[in-house]
Amino acid sequence: MVSWVDGQPDERLAISDRALAYGDGLFETMRVERGRPCLFERHMARLRDGCGRLRIPLDDALLRSEVLAYCAQFERGVAKLIVTRGDGLRGYAPPTPSIARRILQSAPLPAYPAVHGEAGVELFPCRTRLAEQPLLAGLKHLNRLEQVLARGEWQDAAFAEGLMCDTSGRVIEGVFSNLFLVLDGRLLTPSLQRCGVAGVMRAEIIERAAAAGMLVEQRDISVEELQRAEEIFLCNSLYGIWPVRRLRQRIWPVGGVTRKLQALLFEHPGNS
Amino acid sequence: MVSWVDGQPDERLAISDRALAYGDGLFETMRVERGRPCLFERHMARLRDGCGRLRIPLDDALLRSEVLAYCAQFERGVAKLIVTRGDGLRGYAPPTPSIARRILQSAPLPAYPAVHGEAGVELFPCRTRLAEQPLLAGLKHLNRLEQVLARGEWQDAAFAEGLMCDTSGRVIEGVFSNLFLVLDGRLLTPSLQRCGVAGVMRAEIIERAAAAGMLVEQRDISVEELQRAEEIFLCNSLYGIWPVRRLRQRIWPVGGVTRKLQALLFEHPGNS
Repeated sequence: MVSWVDGQPDERLAISDRALAYGDGLFETMRVERGRPCLFERHMARLRDGCGRLRIPLDDALLRSEVLAYCAQFERGVAKLIVTRGDGLRGYAPPTPSIARRILQSAPLPAYPAVHGEAGVELFPCRTRLAEQPLLAGLKHLNRLEQVLARGEWQDAAFAEGLMCDTSGRVIEGVFSNLFLVLDGRLLTPSLQRCGVAGVMRAEIIERAAAAGMLVEQRDISVEELQRAEEIFLCNSLYGIWPVRRLRQRIWPVGGVTRKLQALLFEHPGNS
Repeated sequence: MVSWVDGQPDERLAISDRALAYGDGLFETMRVERGRPCLFERHMARLRDGCGRLRIPLDDALLRSEVLAYCAQFERGVAKLIVTRGDGLRGYAPPTPSIARRILQSAPLPAYPAVHGEAGVELFPCRTRLAEQPLLAGLKHLNRLEQVLARGEWQDAAFAEGLMCDTSGRVIEGVFSNLFLVLDGRLLTPSLQRCGVAGVMRAEIIERAAAAGMLVEQRDISVEELQRAEEIFLCNSLYGIWPVRRLRQRIWPVGGVTRKLQALLFEHPGNS
């Protein structure tokens, strides 16, 4: 489907845009079902937070109506929203005022095998580490060379995702997923204070788990703890939850907590 | 002057380009004098090195002829070259094969006051730190949000540049410059093994200093060492060398080594 740039059908962008020059912007990748973006409020909240932290001014009402109108055009698929700081002067200094640019693109839902959600996936252990930058941690910004390098490490389709640690060796996330684990009966997910992307599905799972009486603890996780975990699963806003069944020599059965959270998501898949 | 995209006059870019999505590319900012890019061989060498490290395939001969033809159109100014991994599939995985895209833009030379080179500049102490990522260190890649944040910290024109340290507190560089210092009579510049951009003017100064009998030592530099330095200066490919005359309460006179290196650059300003 045709893309929109600042609300108009377009497939091209001014090369003066700061997203091209510096990756100066943010994005959201939304699952669309029956013409509606799933987890829409969470996507908008994360984007608002990111724009606040990067000081990109955003017309929230305009953006919301634009995203909803764009998604209403198709039954099912992926809508990707990019918000940039807009056209720039030469040099890093953010123009004042900046006029944010909005880009909407669509794609079919990725053809992930159903077995990923049922039997689980094998994780590729990426050598690429995530640098620790608290000022950008959690944001879904456009500076994604670390993910490009990490995803370039494997071609073997036997690995559905890759595991990324930070430069200090802590477990952080997948290349395009967040990660949870059950350790000594407790549900944990890595802290994203130093690096990593705070996914909307991660937030949704934390909330649904809490509502079901399972408190998720966000803290630093070591590789040793991951290896000792009773269960591991991945999540993102497109596929929901994938159990992890293998990392290196360690093999996990799909656990009860993972199955329970999959069921909780399935009950109201498009909510919030 | 009109920009070129893949050798054709154009001011717009396909929004499917991976530079927009991920900052997946590299750039060079070249000073043009009499229709020729200064330090051309150094710019091309750094770009080749960067493309090698990011595995972006590059037609070196085509790019060289294109850059030279573009620059030949104007007497004096700035030519900015961006090389991207080209159009992408959805997702981080680099397409195989990738078809690199080339973008050339021009601008007038920045109107820096002559006093910056003569009497020196005051450095703003940036709070934004550079994350330590050896896989990207030295590269002039398109993931530049740290520089955008740092340059956004001050508006006061009394500060011509900002000082950036890494997350461990080591002195690394300016926001758009490299840095040298004279400490206990020795000429030093920060190591760029963990972060920072390996500037072409930095490389040129290291070579010219060596030819004049001054060996430049590249090593870790602490803030305390910077404060103790006898001389500090900045450099980049557009303005050459600026002495640093002030950082916080410390004031430096313009030193003899700085003046000597300015003179060495001035002797053959456009060489590579």
